[in-house]
Formats: sequence, structure tokens, C-alpha cells
Amino acid sequence: MPRYRLDIEYDGGPYSGWQRQAVGQHSVQAAIEQAIERFCGDAISIRGAGRTDAGVHATAQVAHADLSKDWPADTVRDAVNAYLQRAGERVTILGAVAVPDEFDARFSAVGRHYLYRIANRRAPPALDMGKVWWVPKRLDAEAMHEAAKVLLGRHDFTTFRSTQCQANSPLRTLERLDVTRRGEMIEVRTSARSFLHNQVRSMVGSLKRVGEGAWTAADLKGALDARDRAACGQVAPPDGLFLTGVDYPTS
Amino acid sequence: MPRYRLDIEYDGGPYSGWQRQAVGQHSVQAAIEQAIERFCGDAISIRGAGRTDAGVHATAQVAHADLSKDWPADTVRDAVNAYLQRAGERVTILGAVAVPDEFDARFSAVGRHYLYRIANRRAPPALDMGKVWWVPKRLDAEAMHEAAKVLLGRHDFTTFRSTQCQANSPLRTLERLDVTRRGEMIEVRTSARSFLHNQVRSMVGSLKRVGEGAWTAADLKGALDARDRAACGQVAPPDGLFLTGVDYPTS
Repeated sequence: MPRYRLDIEYDGGPYSGWQRQAVGQHSVQAAIEQAIERFCGDAISIRGAGRTDAGVHATAQVAHADLSKDWPADTVRDAVNAYLQRAGERVTILGAVAVPDEFDARFSAVGRHYLYRIANRRAPPALDMGKVWWVPKRLDAEAMHEAAKVLLGRHDFTTFRSTQCQANSPLRTLERLDVTRRGEMIEVRTSARSFLHNQVRSMVGSLKRVGEGAWTAADLKGALDARDRAACGQVAPPDGLFLTGVDYPTS
Repeated sequence: MPRYRLDIEYDGGPYSGWQRQAVGQHSVQAAIEQAIERFCGDAISIRGAGRTDAGVHATAQVAHADLSKDWPADTVRDAVNAYLQRAGERVTILGAVAVPDEFDARFSAVGRHYLYRIANRRAPPALDMGKVWWVPKRLDAEAMHEAAKVLLGRHDFTTFRSTQCQANSPLRTLERLDVTRRGEMIEVRTSARSFLHNQVRSMVGSLKRVGEGAWTAADLKGALDARDRAACGQVAPPDGLFLTGVDYPTS
């Protein structure tokens, strides 16, 4: 079974999330699996690096797919894209490449990168509707960036974890959490080996409290130390979240 | 009648264009006029600086509106936005400001700026669907930029003008036509006091011919000199076009 790595971009707006769901819901995974089946007849299950939630986007999701036949990788990319286009999906295969059987998009991944965008202006977004979190009240991005440092490193992130989270441990090591303002857009960039369910959106929602002056960095630290989901600020909406990269060992 | 200048952003995708049309078509102008009427009861006609076509976007359209009552400008902005949001429009008022009666969004304008975006990659756009022209074949952006220089200055632009164009003269002075590549995105930026109908999309479609090697700069010059609509290359689709600014005298 030749294995292919697929690099994937999608607009999460119309989907129930990455992962295939119950009947009646349309996931990004199912969209790709259907396109693969239409292309080569293989009814397979693909595995993605990040199980993004409903409405969350990706500029660089990674998945692997085992096909029954050895196709040129560019044929896989172009044919799957043709069927995705025909079905009106907002999903595209940026690249396909043959990989060894040892490559597992999810379990081989050693780093994940996310971007969260906040449109911080009075006017609602028109062009970026569904692709940003609209926060009309002025936020102090520098204060958010400073406060974010208390979350860096290895911690029990129970406060910033969905009660639905299925991970065995709430311990994670946050490698990056940068907040920068570019005009009316606030960008939060974060990296870790892996994240808990809803962790990025939970952190962003709490950082917003800092940005509006409701919380200090010490309050954020207190929320982390509480290890209590109830201590979390608002969970930021999915609209502003983008999976922007997945790292694998270079060996 | 207090006059207000409105700075407007919109996603042109769902609209028949800027200008109010026959019954059954929904224009950006009508969306704003309806929101104004719901806000203050004034059934007025607003005038925009650029009459963008169906599917063309704006980050900074300008219009003026005469209201029957003196409202604080911020109230106009926020109230019109609230009614636009309620109606599910993809139009937003970035700013409103009271202006003298002499200000006319269309006739006072002394410069217009457009951006055209080409997604130049094998994979169809997913996140940018409807906001770019997808051209899978590699384009030579430098050749496009060099060739574009033959269009700068004052010319008869009959070749690059829709047969529907209602302007009295085909003479226009093109002040800027820059082509730059940023990764997989090619950006064409152009400025003039005013443009003919379909001029930007006609110029971009012909520049694409240069980018793919079908035309030289001399061919582009020949097309211009022909003063013949039939000499124009493909007219680029509206998706990639954004009205990005309108200039007024600073006096």
C-alpha cells in the first residue's frame, strides 16, 4: 500500500471540523476521502495531524493516505483536487508526496503551529467575515504579549482544555505564544508539540481579557494555576483560528 | 441636508455590483441605502466613487449620503453597520464623517487605486476562493511588470475598455501599473484619476498573456495601439479585483 503525505488548505466555515462525524455532518476528512474514492475507487480512511474543530481553518494541515496503487504523486494531488472542485468543496491539496510507511501524519508530528486573528476595529468584518474574531473594543496587544509569557513552558493546562478533551494528560509544553498588532489586526501565533482540545481558543479568549484590561498577567497566571476549567475566560470563536504548520523529524 | 462621507468595505461576491440595478438584483449601493432607511427613515440615493462590477470587492470604496437630520458621524457608522449586519450583508462602513456640500464622492475624486490578485499555483484556492484569479500555469511576474510600462501615461484605451463603457472619451492617464510576486500570489497595483469600464480587468488579462509567454511587451503595445477591443486578451474575472482607495484634494 503506497503511502502519500497530503498537505491541505481549507476554509473550515462550511465543515463540522476535520474529523469524519456522524451521518448528516460534513467534515474536511470526509470531503477528501470522497474525492479519493471518486479518483481511484479506494474507500480509505485518512489521518490528519490536527483534528481542527468546526469552523477552524488550515493553511497547512497534513494527512496521510494509503492508496492501493502506485500513482505519481502529482497525479494524486491534481486528481483529488479536480474531484474536490467538482464537489464544490472549500478544500485543496497543496501537495502530495510518497512517504515511507513509517510516516504517520498524526503520530510522527513533533510540532504544531497555529495562528489566531482578531479584527480589532469598530466596523464589523466584511471581506474577512468568518476568518477573524471581531472585537470592536480596543485591545492592548503589548499587554497581551507580555502576559502570554506566563503560559510558556510545561504546565498543567486543565484551565485551558475543553471538558470534552480526550487526551490522557493535561500536561503540555507551550513553545511559543506571541501577540502582535498589524494595524487593526491582532495576530496570536502559538506553537507546541501538541495542544489539548480547545487549548488555543481558550488561551486566546483569556488573553483578550488581558487586552481589554479586565485581567492582569497575574490573573492569567492565577487562572493557569487554578487547573480548573471554570477559571478560563471566554473561549474564542473558531473563525479566527488557522492551523498553519506541522513539523516532522527531518532525519 | 447634512452630507456624510462613508468609507466602505465589501465582499463583492454576493452582489450584482456597486450600482443599484433592476428589481431582483442586489447591489452594494442598495444594501447600504436599505440600511440607512431602516436606521433613520431617509429613502435616499447615495453616490459611490467607483462603480465596481458584479463580484468585485472593495477595501476602501467611498460614497456620500445626504441625511435629513444632523447625526453624530459615529452614530451613522454604527447604526448603518448594525442594520447591515442584521440583514446579513457582506458590507461594512469603516468610517463616516460629516463633509461640506461641495464634496462629491464621485466627481471630487482625483485618484482611484485598485489591486488585482492572481493565485499562481497548481492547487485551486480554498481559503481565497472568490478573492483571487486562479492561474495554475507559472507566470513570469517580472516580464509582466516590464511589459506593463507600455501602458503607463496618457493613451486611448479603447482596446482595454468594455463595449458597454459609457465614458465620453477613451483617453485615460495611467499613473501606476506594478506587478509583483509574493510567493504564490501575484499582485497587480494600478492607479489613475479614473478608469474606463473593465479597464483594470482587461489590462490584467492581457498582462497574463505576457506572463505565460504568449505575448511580448511589443505585443501589448501593439494591442494598445490597435485601439480595437478585439485586440484585447482575456478579460480577467472579477474575483481578484479590489478597489483599495480613492483620493480627494487635500485643500
